[in-house]
Amino acid sequence: MTHDPERHTQKMIRIKAARDKMMATKTGEKGLIIVHTGNGKGKSSSGFGMILRCIGNGMQCAVVQFIKGSMPSGERSLLKERFADVCAFHTMGEGFTWETQDRVRDTEMAQAAWHKAKDLIRDDANSMVLLDEINIALRYDYLDIADVVRFLTEEKPPMTHVVLTGRNAKPELIEIADLVSEMKEIKHPFRDQGVKAQPGVEF
Amino acid sequence: MTHDPERHTQKMIRIKAARDKMMATKTGEKGLIIVHTGNGKGKSSSGFGMILRCIGNGMQCAVVQFIKGSMPSGERSLLKERFADVCAFHTMGEGFTWETQDRVRDTEMAQAAWHKAKDLIRDDANSMVLLDEINIALRYDYLDIADVVRFLTEEKPPMTHVVLTGRNAKPELIEIADLVSEMKEIKHPFRDQGVKAQPGVEF
Repeated sequence: MTHDPERHTQKMIRIKAARDKMMATKTGEKGLIIVHTGNGKGKSSSGFGMILRCIGNGMQCAVVQFIKGSMPSGERSLLKERFADVCAFHTMGEGFTWETQDRVRDTEMAQAAWHKAKDLIRDDANSMVLLDEINIALRYDYLDIADVVRFLTEEKPPMTHVVLTGRNAKPELIEIADLVSEMKEIKHPFRDQGVKAQPGVEF
Repeated sequence: MTHDPERHTQKMIRIKAARDKMMATKTGEKGLIIVHTGNGKGKSSSGFGMILRCIGNGMQCAVVQFIKGSMPSGERSLLKERFADVCAFHTMGEGFTWETQDRVRDTEMAQAAWHKAKDLIRDDANSMVLLDEINIALRYDYLDIADVVRFLTEEKPPMTHVVLTGRNAKPELIEIADLVSEMKEIKHPFRDQGVKAQPGVEF
């Protein structure tokens, strides 16, 4: 990159022309299947950031939490207390698999969450539905990946965005997704510094 | 993983014991320097998800946008209209570098944004300050990385979280960060399908 103002301007004019040409080809609109996976931080928080965007744009949306049910969280309190009219919020999970220690119960809860999720997605008043930590339920086979893939490809209304989060996303899900980001851990203070989960950051 | 309920329970009891032991060592609390970088989606949205968490936890916070100033966005409308009392919001950038085409002006704007950011971080009433797209300003040398590093390591109040987003984070910043996530693009509908930026998802 150049530090000369004139050359900078010329370079930016060229970049803008190339970019405008490229962006002119990006005209499609569709409801996206979005997957946030990987071992790093940012999967759920990015999903909640998009929910914030929806609410700010006046778009009705919904959240189903598959795993993190028993823990209090800032995002849940705020959405339930202030935005219940525009964002349905369902917490179906009872905690991490190692907390519940009950596979039968975990499976029932995940199935109930998926049933609720399907109702919310079918309702095309919802522009976006966030399925938080559903990848964990899929990984442990609490839900059938073939059933989830079939529903998303065949029954999701065409303009509805569905966001699916959690590490270890199944290849079948990545295959049908429109947008996949892998959040990769480069540094984490739990592991590196013995810092605990803190409000605002993790919940 | 096992599908036998009894064996599952035994396995989860072992995992929980190991996890509880590990978590007992995670007792520290500190204000974190958090960096979201990489070429994938989720860097800014995850920052805004944490802002949502802060507000939900009753923590005062602040946002400074270094680049994306001229474009409307759902997150900005919502935070400015509904949460101005708990989350200061400053939009200092006038758009992408190829839109402004003016290096001198871009540099002035970035310097003004950084000046505002320092004031907000120094005010320890703020639990978290999000510096959205600051990495772009650093990459183009609109800001001096040595100055940013010095301020964050020497002047940031110890309990304040600072979140810095944008691709191409400088190695000097990653070096001093506590938490770094790289958002890696696996699939993106702009490139793969010609789908344009859509409300709720990108803004």
